[in-house]
Amino acid sequence: MTRTIKVDLGLRSYNVRIAPGMLARLGPTVAHLGEVSSAVVVSDSNVSELYGLTAIDSLKQAGVSARQITFPAGEQHKTLASASNLLDELLWGDPPADRRSVVVALGGGVTGDLAGFVAAVALRGLRWVQCPTSLLADVDASVGGKTAVDHPSGKNLIGVFHQPAGVLIDIDTLKTLPREEFINGLAECVKHAVIRDAELLNFIEDNTEKILALDPGVLTDFIARNVEIKAAVVSADERESGMRVHLNYGHTVAHAIETFVGYDRITHGQAVALGMAAAGRMAARRGLIEDEVAMRVEKILADLRLPVRMTDVGGGIGKLNPRRIREIMQRDKKTRGGRIRMILPVAPGQVSIFDDITPDAIDDAVEYINR
Amino acid sequence: MTRTIKVDLGLRSYNVRIAPGMLARLGPTVAHLGEVSSAVVVSDSNVSELYGLTAIDSLKQAGVSARQITFPAGEQHKTLASASNLLDELLWGDPPADRRSVVVALGGGVTGDLAGFVAAVALRGLRWVQCPTSLLADVDASVGGKTAVDHPSGKNLIGVFHQPAGVLIDIDTLKTLPREEFINGLAECVKHAVIRDAELLNFIEDNTEKILALDPGVLTDFIARNVEIKAAVVSADERESGMRVHLNYGHTVAHAIETFVGYDRITHGQAVALGMAAAGRMAARRGLIEDEVAMRVEKILADLRLPVRMTDVGGGIGKLNPRRIREIMQRDKKTRGGRIRMILPVAPGQVSIFDDITPDAIDDAVEYINR
Repeated sequence: MTRTIKVDLGLRSYNVRIAPGMLARLGPTVAHLGEVSSAVVVSDSNVSELYGLTAIDSLKQAGVSARQITFPAGEQHKTLASASNLLDELLWGDPPADRRSVVVALGGGVTGDLAGFVAAVALRGLRWVQCPTSLLADVDASVGGKTAVDHPSGKNLIGVFHQPAGVLIDIDTLKTLPREEFINGLAECVKHAVIRDAELLNFIEDNTEKILALDPGVLTDFIARNVEIKAAVVSADERESGMRVHLNYGHTVAHAIETFVGYDRITHGQAVALGMAAAGRMAARRGLIEDEVAMRVEKILADLRLPVRMTDVGGGIGKLNPRRIREIMQRDKKTRGGRIRMILPVAPGQVSIFDDITPDAIDDAVEYINR
Repeated sequence: MTRTIKVDLGLRSYNVRIAPGMLARLGPTVAHLGEVSSAVVVSDSNVSELYGLTAIDSLKQAGVSARQITFPAGEQHKTLASASNLLDELLWGDPPADRRSVVVALGGGVTGDLAGFVAAVALRGLRWVQCPTSLLADVDASVGGKTAVDHPSGKNLIGVFHQPAGVLIDIDTLKTLPREEFINGLAECVKHAVIRDAELLNFIEDNTEKILALDPGVLTDFIARNVEIKAAVVSADERESGMRVHLNYGHTVAHAIETFVGYDRITHGQAVALGMAAAGRMAARRGLIEDEVAMRVEKILADLRLPVRMTDVGGGIGKLNPRRIREIMQRDKKTRGGRIRMILPVAPGQVSIFDDITPDAIDDAVEYINR
């Protein structure tokens, strides 16, 4: 049941392939790239333990010389210092990387971002293959070529665009993903449905329990559709100047929430779910959509165990301060001249960009999710 | 007497402008880019002292908010650690960089490489303007979009391609350039003449003393022609897969010499001059060119105070070991499968790629420059 989606970027086009057991096909995939001197598998300490050998074995069986390098698990290690350590291991290891080396990013979003960045800057750009092992990485990080590390002053502030040579999504790896992380990824899937695909909203409603039970057939189709949506948006607009900003739906408020409560006290998916609830409220209040349309999205999120009110989050994080949220949003790197830009739903599967968000509208939406 | 050369790279095309006093035009140039929030001038401690205020004043007079950040002078500081420090100052400074910030690289090759790299990875790519202050940076680093830092295992191993938005070459800055550094840059100029432009060989012969005396008119024309040649090569082949490898003429041996004697004991220009002498010997020995053609290049180099024999270098660096030089060349990141590739002259202003270099030919050429 392999599904293949082409990310169309001219000369830098690549395929995303999705199936159970896909990791065993890493070796042939890398070998097929041609002129490969060796492969270096980058993963964190946890994923290395779970899937490192599978990856290395597959590479070696395909005749590709391969070694593994690791970094400590956790977003707090997505730093320039970690990148520097990995570059040392890449350039000093045996064999040292040369221009025909291939980097394999085996892991979740942190690994994809970090290993992709390392591949981008090593020898002015090595080819890399992404093997995501989390739902969020499957449907979000695997398409777009964004690589980055965090800076103490903000997330993903240091990075470059560097498209992978291919992406292999092994849905079996989701079995070992912590439940919380799986739920986390579902927020981006709902986002894709809301911004582009009313049909996917129906699919999620019809298959909520099968998705949560990791049914292989449903999951393969579900992830494939999400990758298709992300790929279509990115292909149309590689440089985040036009339609790609639609992907920020739910994220402007989400980033502010994360900054306000602290990145360690809420998952990105939870923050995005709350951001989508806030965006729905804003859209309904402006009369862009009926209340029922906003409510429907909230129900889908809640059925997928995602929060739509601050009290749903748990962990005693309390309420948001509307004024602080506004201030954080104004500082966001995506704002222009202090104006806050929001992506709001205008119909099921359709969003638009709004640059005229008033402080009052933000306060109302924040109070709404504070309830 | 401003000369303007367009580097033609489609959407990423930019102009290189060359004149005495060009640095005073930095402000209008940056302002003209449009949507500029602020400029950050990156320079080393020496250049900051000499030209930092001129740059900042020009920016402020053009209405561009500007600040300066510096790093310690010297190639030993072209590291990921320096880049990290500069990124801290960029992202934490007042005002912190945003996507509309512009980085100005003010200095020699180290500054261009380092500041360009910082611009490339900050917020996934800031615009940058290059203001080279050394002859080598004028004619070499200013065209091609190569940015990089060194790694302990080799030079320029960490970097990306990131084209500047513009380049301003102020030939007045060459007055404060140490003599040795000026001579250093002349090696690349001779290289450009040998690989592309028999007319430039004549020009150098006719104007040797005026070039060495920094005659403004001659120097502007001379640098402009060199930039034109580099730009033509780079425009034709942005990704170093075809004609761009011609720029490695003299460099395969040069890199091996630098590694063998130590980067601190020979300038890059000296090594390249010796590499060109070695390449000339190889070409003459194979019957590609007459001995006199090789001798003519050696005379041009010697008249420009560049070494063509190891004994010309001074500093008691002694002789090269042919076997070690061969080993180092085989390890070079540009070799493929252990085969050594050399760019050899086949006529004045013309070179070709040779992949069939024998160990014997290398030994002979090394012994030749050892004399």
